[in-house]
Amino acid sequence: MALVCPHGHVDPRMFAGNSPYPDPATLIVIPDHYIFRMLYSQGIALERLGVPRTGGGAVEQDPRKIWQLFAENFRLYRGTPTGCWIADELAVVFGIEESLNAANGMRIYDQLCEKLATPEFLPRTLFERFRIEVLCTTDAATDTLESHHRIRESGWKGRVIPTFRPDLAIDILNPNWGREIEKLGTLAKREIVDFPSYIGALENRRAFFKSMGAVSTDHGCVSPHTEQLSTGEANNILQRALVGQADALDARRFTAHMLIEMARMSSEDGLVMQLHPGSWRNHNLSIQRMFGLDKGCDIPMATEYTANLHALLNAFGNHPKFRLVLFTLDESTYSRELAPLAGHYPALRLGPPWWFHDSLQGMIRYREQVTETAGIYNTAGFNDDTRAFPSIPARHDLSRRMDANFLARLVARHQIEMDEAMEMMPDLAANLARETYRLG
Amino acid sequence: MALVCPHGHVDPRMFAGNSPYPDPATLIVIPDHYIFRMLYSQGIALERLGVPRTGGGAVEQDPRKIWQLFAENFRLYRGTPTGCWIADELAVVFGIEESLNAANGMRIYDQLCEKLATPEFLPRTLFERFRIEVLCTTDAATDTLESHHRIRESGWKGRVIPTFRPDLAIDILNPNWGREIEKLGTLAKREIVDFPSYIGALENRRAFFKSMGAVSTDHGCVSPHTEQLSTGEANNILQRALVGQADALDARRFTAHMLIEMARMSSEDGLVMQLHPGSWRNHNLSIQRMFGLDKGCDIPMATEYTANLHALLNAFGNHPKFRLVLFTLDESTYSRELAPLAGHYPALRLGPPWWFHDSLQGMIRYREQVTETAGIYNTAGFNDDTRAFPSIPARHDLSRRMDANFLARLVARHQIEMDEAMEMMPDLAANLARETYRLG
Amino acid sequence: MALVCPHGHVDPRMFAGNSPYPDPATLIVIPDHYIFRMLYSQGIALERLGVPRTGGGAVEQDPRKIWQLFAENFRLYRGTPTGCWIADELAVVFGIEESLNAANGMRIYDQLCEKLATPEFLPRTLFERFRIEVLCTTDAATDTLESHHRIRESGWKGRVIPTFRPDLAIDILNPNWGREIEKLGTLAKREIVDFPSYIGALENRRAFFKSMGAVSTDHGCVSPHTEQLSTGEANNILQRALVGQADALDARRFTAHMLIEMARMSSEDGLVMQLHPGSWRNHNLSIQRMFGLDKGCDIPMATEYTANLHALLNAFGNHPKFRLVLFTLDESTYSRELAPLAGHYPALRLGPPWWFHDSLQGMIRYREQVTETAGIYNTAGFNDDTRAFPSIPARHDLSRRMDANFLARLVARHQIEMDEAMEMMPDLAANLARETYRLG
Repeated sequence: MALVCPHGHVDPRMFAGNSPYPDPATLIVIPDHYIFRMLYSQGIALERLGVPRTGGGAVEQDPRKIWQLFAENFRLYRGTPTGCWIADELAVVFGIEESLNAANGMRIYDQLCEKLATPEFLPRTLFERFRIEVLCTTDAATDTLESHHRIRESGWKGRVIPTFRPDLAIDILNPNWGREIEKLGTLAKREIVDFPSYIGALENRRAFFKSMGAVSTDHGCVSPHTEQLSTGEANNILQRALVGQADALDARRFTAHMLIEMARMSSEDGLVMQLHPGSWRNHNLSIQRMFGLDKGCDIPMATEYTANLHALLNAFGNHPKFRLVLFTLDESTYSRELAPLAGHYPALRLGPPWWFHDSLQGMIRYREQVTETAGIYNTAGFNDDTRAFPSIPARHDLSRRMDANFLARLVARHQIEMDEAMEMMPDLAANLARETYRLG
Repeated sequence: MALVCPHGHVDPRMFAGNSPYPDPATLIVIPDHYIFRMLYSQGIALERLGVPRTGGGAVEQDPRKIWQLFAENFRLYRGTPTGCWIADELAVVFGIEESLNAANGMRIYDQLCEKLATPEFLPRTLFERFRIEVLCTTDAATDTLESHHRIRESGWKGRVIPTFRPDLAIDILNPNWGREIEKLGTLAKREIVDFPSYIGALENRRAFFKSMGAVSTDHGCVSPHTEQLSTGEANNILQRALVGQADALDARRFTAHMLIEMARMSSEDGLVMQLHPGSWRNHNLSIQRMFGLDKGCDIPMATEYTANLHALLNAFGNHPKFRLVLFTLDESTYSRELAPLAGHYPALRLGPPWWFHDSLQGMIRYREQVTETAGIYNTAGFNDDTRAFPSIPARHDLSRRMDANFLARLVARHQIEMDEAMEMMPDLAANLARETYRLG
Repeated sequence: MALVCPHGHVDPRMFAGNSPYPDPATLIVIPDHYIFRMLYSQGIALERLGVPRTGGGAVEQDPRKIWQLFAENFRLYRGTPTGCWIADELAVVFGIEESLNAANGMRIYDQLCEKLATPEFLPRTLFERFRIEVLCTTDAATDTLESHHRIRESGWKGRVIPTFRPDLAIDILNPNWGREIEKLGTLAKREIVDFPSYIGALENRRAFFKSMGAVSTDHGCVSPHTEQLSTGEANNILQRALVGQADALDARRFTAHMLIEMARMSSEDGLVMQLHPGSWRNHNLSIQRMFGLDKGCDIPMATEYTANLHALLNAFGNHPKFRLVLFTLDESTYSRELAPLAGHYPALRLGPPWWFHDSLQGMIRYREQVTETAGIYNTAGFNDDTRAFPSIPARHDLSRRMDANFLARLVARHQIEMDEAMEMMPDLAANLARETYRLG
């Protein structure tokens, strides 16, 4: 069965260039914060794992040493999905059935290198072998989508499409916001001087992304707070931001308003809106200082949806063209807020278990806490949400096994009939993702 | 085994009049927000489901069309308790074993109509066939209990008793509060001019409800916040409310105080107090505007009990005559707050899983998260909490199966002996409800 | 396999004196709030259970009557860990296989008395029979550790070591704080007149505890809020406290700062820091007034870790010598905050399920919600956390069975191999506790 990948973080350059992957450590260990966060938690310095320092300080350069360190500590992943994914990836993608350990680390490294050097392991070949129907990347509002252009122009038939993620363009307190707004204005060919021109530029970029095949947008924020401002208020905040005088309350209200603006745009251009709230980014400041963002130190927080989404859902929750896919890192909201919301508002679909919860038990909890109130048809199917391209089949496989297991238990308890389960399984595996993200 | 129904929303007029039910759509689909909320979440307009508009706008009038639409979309309920209840109700109450779908919808409709026209399906006959020992309704403080009078006077032996629910009389910001207070004064034969006369009128109505067989009161609120005011403070707020000048803080404090007043009255008249907090009522304002209250758009919120109930429990939690049955829509409170509270305060019993959580997995979570700290003897047994009368046997059946399953697992793990399980099963099925609600 | 007991509340005097235990009620019922809280919740007065009144009022003196009342109500513990522990303790420690009830209560009482009078049931003999490798007690900062001295001097080889718990010395609003500070100054041989002398006295006591074998400190607080104050600010608050003029905000900030100070000291002296937040102590004020503290009326509250620990973890979370063992009463934080934190910060280990959650289902929830993000090697192994000495083997046995069950399910699902499970089992049973608490 084909893999539908509506949300993820694979770098599109690998398909534009289609160059061989360099080596196992650079492919698997160094870029994956799921992997190195666990090693770090046991006292292994990120420098020893080759994670690049933003200031350019010395880090381990020998991929063999990095891989060996990983192999020696592979027992740390026992009982984690990361452990399962890597074992599955080694076995299914690379044909290596042994469990990684200190003794076989270098031997497996050499086997992997050998494979990676062959044409069978070029990115596009793997893409086809994995039977990926569509792969959505995640791209800043000011991304030129150069790689996507090159993929299209190459004549390759693999469907790799962008996702519009304007977080930086909305985050008025971010030190890089001013530069982003300049870039945004340049790309949208209009000077951003007030709220209407800012909105116009964003609409222009959405249209561009859509022309490049995008079907959705993505929004990350600490709180899903939404609040309708008047254009005047929004403009006042923007003006303060443009001269560097916005404060924390301004930022909070501006983001809250922009989420509604994005919903409004989605109700017009039909791009599916995704919302990923609830993470305290870069909790460990010394890691951020030395290694930058996304280094495994984002920590979830309690998240409130019922009150926070009231304004947005009352504005667009009943709109026939609008669709919002909602994610959470706070599992206590599944049965309390998210399933009741998704079981009522027509515009709403629940995204699959996300990040820390994209795991065996996490998936069970999700199905058990969501289904009874929202059914399965208000959920968005699976997405792999990964930057680790070769782990994609393992992730879909795990998810499909868990869903099959869930359905089997419903049948065993006589909650559904076997013929219903046979219909629901392809829905969970692919149809819901296709339908939710309008990937027809 | 008889069914004990200490809390629900069945309309007592059906037993007063004992007229035949009109048709399957009017009986099953149109009044049940569990059913139409799911259809609405998938874009089916409430108008097409015959849900009446408050302003009287056009809605579908043909019950056959409504039923057919329901049948066509019955797959949406797969894996939900609503799906199980309806299947069970069709099978056990109406003898229809087929799974409802687009093809058989009209045929099943006709079969149901045929049955509903027979004397075997009159409300009182079903009541007896279901072996309902007692059925508690829910009634406003100003309800005259006319239907309950008629039931009593009819000589019919079915035990249908009222529950005192004074929410509107306490909600001083509600636009209908003033009218309710007038009605309250009229019925209690005293002018409500200050806090003592207000309290006196409520006590008068409680005495009337008790004389009509009531064993309990019921209280819904957003937060279970309780706070002891002086009579002077309470009176000042009431005076402001009587002249339409109370504000949100007044309302919050007044409700918080009135919960303690209601506990005080319960400790005197012995009516069991029920508290149902934690729902944001009418979250979807356009649905409320068009269709009114209770239309499937109430959404739960995080709820705090430990601090909020401190005042009430310190005032009456050790009182030998007081009993408080506590419910929640926030499952994270089961093990964190509710089981520890119920495992300590003698006045407290935990109500069964409520509303969205009155489901297979919801019941499992409840038993697993509550029992180890509170045992089963600090829980209140099952209640069906439904306005869908013919679904009552299905609901009790589901609950009893889940409890039997829970006990079987305790036996299998040697946590309890088989003879203990045999004693606990009737306790869970009926005795705890009888004992908790003093339904001797 | 030996029992490692790194955290608990057993009274060290029993090993210093090694006198026979008086009788079953005094040994098992009267001191154990797990036991009498359940009886109280069903309306049995604490006076009837012999719980001493702080003001010295009359309570039941006859241990036979107390035991009989306990036996008559033993059914209340069905399905609770307390029920399992007692049954296991009676069977394994005392050889009594019958299930306790009204009919056999007195017979079992007599059997227990007979055993308790024999040398086989002296505290030290039981300690050895239980194969306790080490038992940590919990002791105030101003405890002279007299019993620990006597144990050492007696030549007995049992390893019973203290834990430094300075809660009272830090709680500046506590009415007994002033006296505690005086005691602290006396014991540390320095007058406490400002923040540096206060800190010096605490450091002095830590050194003393360490010299007596202590490997850890323990800290209880309502919120795990941490905040770095300047020494000047901290000193100002202390000065206000010394003259009785500190307020609630002072206390909150002082505690928040002292947690960081304690982390700093741990990073220097290597004592493992334990943090137990989230309990509203003495929720039932009339019980507190009559019977004092720790009488089964502490109720958990929602607890926030991600924001609250930010200051402490940024100061010491990456420190190679610092170790923090974190506990919770709020299970919703397992997957949301605690596992992500422990799966990143090298200094952090998650303590086992605590108090109300130290139960079969509680342990399953913990493993299922923690392991996938943090693995097992960021957890601290088991601790029994009990004052009921003879229940210790039952508690470890239960925990080991649950862990074995958990591992068996991982093997059955092919998440881990059998040889991995065979390595993980002793880690969970003892090695992680030894390693976490540096009990080498």
